[in-house]
Amino acid sequence: MSSGVAMKISQMGTPALLLDRNKLQRNIDVMQSRLQSLKVPFRVHLKTAKCAKIAAMVLSPNNPSITVSTVREAEYFFDHGVRDFLYAVGIAPNKLSRVAQLMKKGAVVRLCLDSMVQARALQEAGSNCGLAYDAVIEIDCDGHRGGLPPQSPEIDQIARYLKGSSNVRFCGLMTHAGGSYDMRDIDGIRTMAAQERDAVVSCGQRLSDQGLRSEILSAGSTPTATYGQDWSGLTEVRAGVYLFHDLVMAGLGVCSIDDIALSVLACVIAVQPERQRLIVDAGWMALSRDRGTADHAVDQGYGLVCDINGRPLGDLVVTETNQEHGIVASRTGAPIDFERLCVGSLVRVLPSHACATAAMHRHYHVVDGQEANAVWCRDDGW
Amino acid sequence: MSSGVAMKISQMGTPALLLDRNKLQRNIDVMQSRLQSLKVPFRVHLKTAKCAKIAAMVLSPNNPSITVSTVREAEYFFDHGVRDFLYAVGIAPNKLSRVAQLMKKGAVVRLCLDSMVQARALQEAGSNCGLAYDAVIEIDCDGHRGGLPPQSPEIDQIARYLKGSSNVRFCGLMTHAGGSYDMRDIDGIRTMAAQERDAVVSCGQRLSDQGLRSEILSAGSTPTATYGQDWSGLTEVRAGVYLFHDLVMAGLGVCSIDDIALSVLACVIAVQPERQRLIVDAGWMALSRDRGTADHAVDQGYGLVCDINGRPLGDLVVTETNQEHGIVASRTGAPIDFERLCVGSLVRVLPSHACATAAMHRHYHVVDGQEANAVWCRDDGW
Repeated sequence: MSSGVAMKISQMGTPALLLDRNKLQRNIDVMQSRLQSLKVPFRVHLKTAKCAKIAAMVLSPNNPSITVSTVREAEYFFDHGVRDFLYAVGIAPNKLSRVAQLMKKGAVVRLCLDSMVQARALQEAGSNCGLAYDAVIEIDCDGHRGGLPPQSPEIDQIARYLKGSSNVRFCGLMTHAGGSYDMRDIDGIRTMAAQERDAVVSCGQRLSDQGLRSEILSAGSTPTATYGQDWSGLTEVRAGVYLFHDLVMAGLGVCSIDDIALSVLACVIAVQPERQRLIVDAGWMALSRDRGTADHAVDQGYGLVCDINGRPLGDLVVTETNQEHGIVASRTGAPIDFERLCVGSLVRVLPSHACATAAMHRHYHVVDGQEANAVWCRDDGW
Repeated sequence: MSSGVAMKISQMGTPALLLDRNKLQRNIDVMQSRLQSLKVPFRVHLKTAKCAKIAAMVLSPNNPSITVSTVREAEYFFDHGVRDFLYAVGIAPNKLSRVAQLMKKGAVVRLCLDSMVQARALQEAGSNCGLAYDAVIEIDCDGHRGGLPPQSPEIDQIARYLKGSSNVRFCGLMTHAGGSYDMRDIDGIRTMAAQERDAVVSCGQRLSDQGLRSEILSAGSTPTATYGQDWSGLTEVRAGVYLFHDLVMAGLGVCSIDDIALSVLACVIAVQPERQRLIVDAGWMALSRDRGTADHAVDQGYGLVCDINGRPLGDLVVTETNQEHGIVASRTGAPIDFERLCVGSLVRVLPSHACATAAMHRHYHVVDGQEANAVWCRDDGW
């Protein structure tokens, strides 16, 4: 279902995933105007949202391309009109037949790789099905995950191999500055942004000098896309979690608490004044087990507890979770107002990590103020 | 779909949730014979499995009742023939209308509560819809979550109120010894088992002495159901994760690694010999963010990495996860056999916490040896 009868939040079942439409729109607008002012095209990452309704809010004829983290996401968004994909996870050979199906229907799917083994697997599979796969080489700009260091001669070797292959096209380079999540201030994030840009641009230049032209030079993450000051030389910047923001992003200074568009509506099911805590019906099944702020200056536990209007209730956080139980207590030991919070009270829990919390739900209940007036489906699986 | 064409595991897409049918059956048989030998009825908890096919393997005409953690689970299993439910999470008043719908169709749903506020909400809602809700009072036997301490006079007060109410029935007492998960040896688990039994039985006796008879006296968790030696006085024992077992249960000594029936099939997408690690296409989206063994003697990270036959590959574990990336390294620093594990190799990752890992998937791929020969749906949501 894509819409439903409007309902007061106060009358909804719990737990439920709420998406504040106005904050979502504001987050979209802020990122687009920021990147427009820096004159760099944007390729939104839709692994956080996994929702065609949200894609429609971001994409435009000038901006029709997306990033995905699974083949399933590419298939889903293709069915909703998207044609240009960067699949930003190292390609597993067992996924190539499904990618080929998408290509035969008209999709352009850029695949990531960082090894000759993958390059040869693409060539072989492409030869078998009579297609030419599009490949970008992943650069490791900060040692946090996959990719090859920008100075690695293996990059040049793979690029030359791709260039000389009949069933793979060398499309360029990409990197993901996941290390930006480990920064603790804006200067650190700016340094990471410069580092990922430099890694891709310098490597692209080196390849270009050998006649290996990159049509895609791609970098970005929500922190670096927010604070990066110079994207010159790149063909695109990517970001995804900025759509919703979360407590990790707030902890990094990338957004304010008020920018967080996602929350989990929950109901108080027990109060324990003698232990200064209460229990809500949102456990890890509704919030996820993500503890993204565990090593931040402010540890927000499994989520920051707000009133039904989304305003934080002091420093109440979800400190522990079982499958369907969330234990709520004050982060600082401040007394809980049990007059206000009693069995049956509704609260909204802001997510530690929006990608992880959204992944626990099948639908967004889209809210404007006090009212939920649409239900948007999320796709999932692989 | 409930079955499909048989397929070799080696030909499956990744990531995928595998369920070893023989281990599942063995786990079911072991628990049933253990509790039969102790002469206590069993009420399986199906929050882990969420699957009618698995319910059918456990339930019998002698054993037709289940535990659930959401109203949705009760609705789903009702649609698959189950009629007797214990909803083992403190009841939120906003769920009572859906419970009433189930009751009108013929379900018996025991609701948990630990406050007069809830008791009065049940009476009021029951009065409004002309039904009598069935209620059990939750006892807190170890301070870990909800419920009232067994000696609390509030229990007697609530029981008397329920007994005197026209639209609620007092059905008895339940407790959950979640504290058993914090034990680190079998003696500790046995102590917890005796503690939860004693809490419920002694409290039930006290109420009985006042003419408040309990038809249900319920306790149990997988660790205590496995090692408890005396369940006399209880009307039932509950357990759920034993169906699959996991690395947390293995770490507690409740099962062996070989008993773990659930695994996530994943494909190697990058090797980094210079860093002695590799990357698989199962991140937290496929494994969950659960780190249940983090404070165990053996920290299994986000999962123990096995070959395609389910045999551990030395001490390789998933040490870090991103959404669709899992970083694999040796827990002890032993060198990785990169001849054997190269891009395209398939591995099976045993779950840290089976409930959490299963929750990330819509289907079980049921395997017998090397072959997946059925697809069983999981239900989810609230």
